[in-house]
Amino acid sequence: MGNTAVTVIGLGEMGRALAGALITAGHPTTVWNRSAAKADELVAHGALRAATVEEAVLASPLTLVCLLDYGASDAVLRPAAGALRGRTLVNLTNGTPAQAREAEAWATGHGASYLDGGIMAVPSTVASSQAFVLYSGQKRHFDAHEETLKALGAAKYLGADAGIAALYDLALLSAMSVMFDGFFHSVAMATSHTESSAAGFTELLVPWLTNMAQVMPAFAADVDSDAEPVLGQGLDVVLASVRNMAQASRDAGVRADYFEQSAAALEKQLAEGLSTYTAPDAVRRLRASD
Amino acid sequence: MGNTAVTVIGLGEMGRALAGALITAGHPTTVWNRSAAKADELVAHGALRAATVEEAVLASPLTLVCLLDYGASDAVLRPAAGALRGRTLVNLTNGTPAQAREAEAWATGHGASYLDGGIMAVPSTVASSQAFVLYSGQKRHFDAHEETLKALGAAKYLGADAGIAALYDLALLSAMSVMFDGFFHSVAMATSHTESSAAGFTELLVPWLTNMAQVMPAFAADVDSDAEPVLGQGLDVVLASVRNMAQASRDAGVRADYFEQSAAALEKQLAEGLSTYTAPDAVRRLRASD
Repeated sequence: MGNTAVTVIGLGEMGRALAGALITAGHPTTVWNRSAAKADELVAHGALRAATVEEAVLASPLTLVCLLDYGASDAVLRPAAGALRGRTLVNLTNGTPAQAREAEAWATGHGASYLDGGIMAVPSTVASSQAFVLYSGQKRHFDAHEETLKALGAAKYLGADAGIAALYDLALLSAMSVMFDGFFHSVAMATSHTESSAAGFTELLVPWLTNMAQVMPAFAADVDSDAEPVLGQGLDVVLASVRNMAQASRDAGVRADYFEQSAAALEKQLAEGLSTYTAPDAVRRLRASD
Repeated sequence: MGNTAVTVIGLGEMGRALAGALITAGHPTTVWNRSAAKADELVAHGALRAATVEEAVLASPLTLVCLLDYGASDAVLRPAAGALRGRTLVNLTNGTPAQAREAEAWATGHGASYLDGGIMAVPSTVASSQAFVLYSGQKRHFDAHEETLKALGAAKYLGADAGIAALYDLALLSAMSVMFDGFFHSVAMATSHTESSAAGFTELLVPWLTNMAQVMPAFAADVDSDAEPVLGQGLDVVLASVRNMAQASRDAGVRADYFEQSAAALEKQLAEGLSTYTAPDAVRRLRASD
């Protein structure tokens, strides 16, 4: 059995990385991009250039779409709707769960099999052992193409709701984004000192964060459990520490708003009679309805 | 040469872990705590119980202090000031750089050698391969006791300014604290879905954050360098992603304030004509003077 032919629509940095991984894995690969020149290097490596989106979709049983947003993917796919019947469309464009569900409804309305996906990699790590791609939609569509999709990175199927891959994607990205905000803040603090460099500080920070992240599964177990949380910290100790972070930031000439707000929230919880900081409580407080 | 005798003042969970590590490493260990019962288990394992702080300080050439805050350590040490002359005091209490510098001035004023320290471990990981302790103050004091201090975890000397260990300590803690805030937010998003569990999501999250943290040294190099940053991302792409995080949070019934504020800040930067998101710029914007 030959390798499945695959089409890649959208050749930004990520789309080019996806197409490159498919070519490397031996899949006949057809590519399309609005500005055709983006395909030149891929064509030099064996990709077929389609002249239109319709031609691109018709070239393969499986089409991957990777564009800036769902507005762009809608605009690009709409004129080719007639070509979708009986083919599988995997939309790897970044978007919200609601957008993924709409895209599924539109595609299945035109007779396509639809999967939504979220790429947890940067272009340079696509197809590496670090890369993984989240998928959601009908399981049989995933099963039919899992082997091919593995060329992009580990393939993780999350569920039948097309929106769950986008939800997890954005949740993972949000945790990363917040982690980097904290990184930048800590570097601003450390480099306020004349005897300090960002590189020297970061040598300590990376193993520290990596080790501390190992606590997360235990926190998660507390969140999933209905029993008394296993992990907890005295709210007064947490508050003292957050106040020190705020004070040391101010003393270092670094904005302390974030920690001042955290301290105020903790003071409010103490005033309400809470004494322990636990993961289920922290998660509950983030629910807008609470 | 026998093992240096060490005194530990303050037997909260962390102080007990420190004393336990010293006993295990074979150091004659004297302990003191305001409520003496906290010492019982350590005494059963070979520690000597001092009746007063003065007696505790006089028992060893090296005294470690680990209390809730500098207010507590000041109050405890003040009556024993006369015992400090010619001895080394290492204050491992959590506090700000300014408090560390004041503590050094007070201790050296009474003839003590002073080091300030920050313990980067939780009580259960003290003395493990993961634990490290930051020290600052006169290098010769650190050199004199480095071998002994290694019993608590890897010993990292940061500089002659007594405040720099506290600065790094709080900077590392702040990065961790923000990372956990992001973790809780992402878990709130993921668990808003009926097909989801915090544990299942966290299995994906931990390797994701761990891999992404490996980018930090390259960001740090950009911060230290005067040249054009090597790493950058299109501000428009970052903004689109942050807007999706905010929208997906709202749709999931999770507070989106953090990401709405981030999006507003990025919009302002785009409006000011900036087009690339870089680490030096992110750090510069956190400086209060900017």
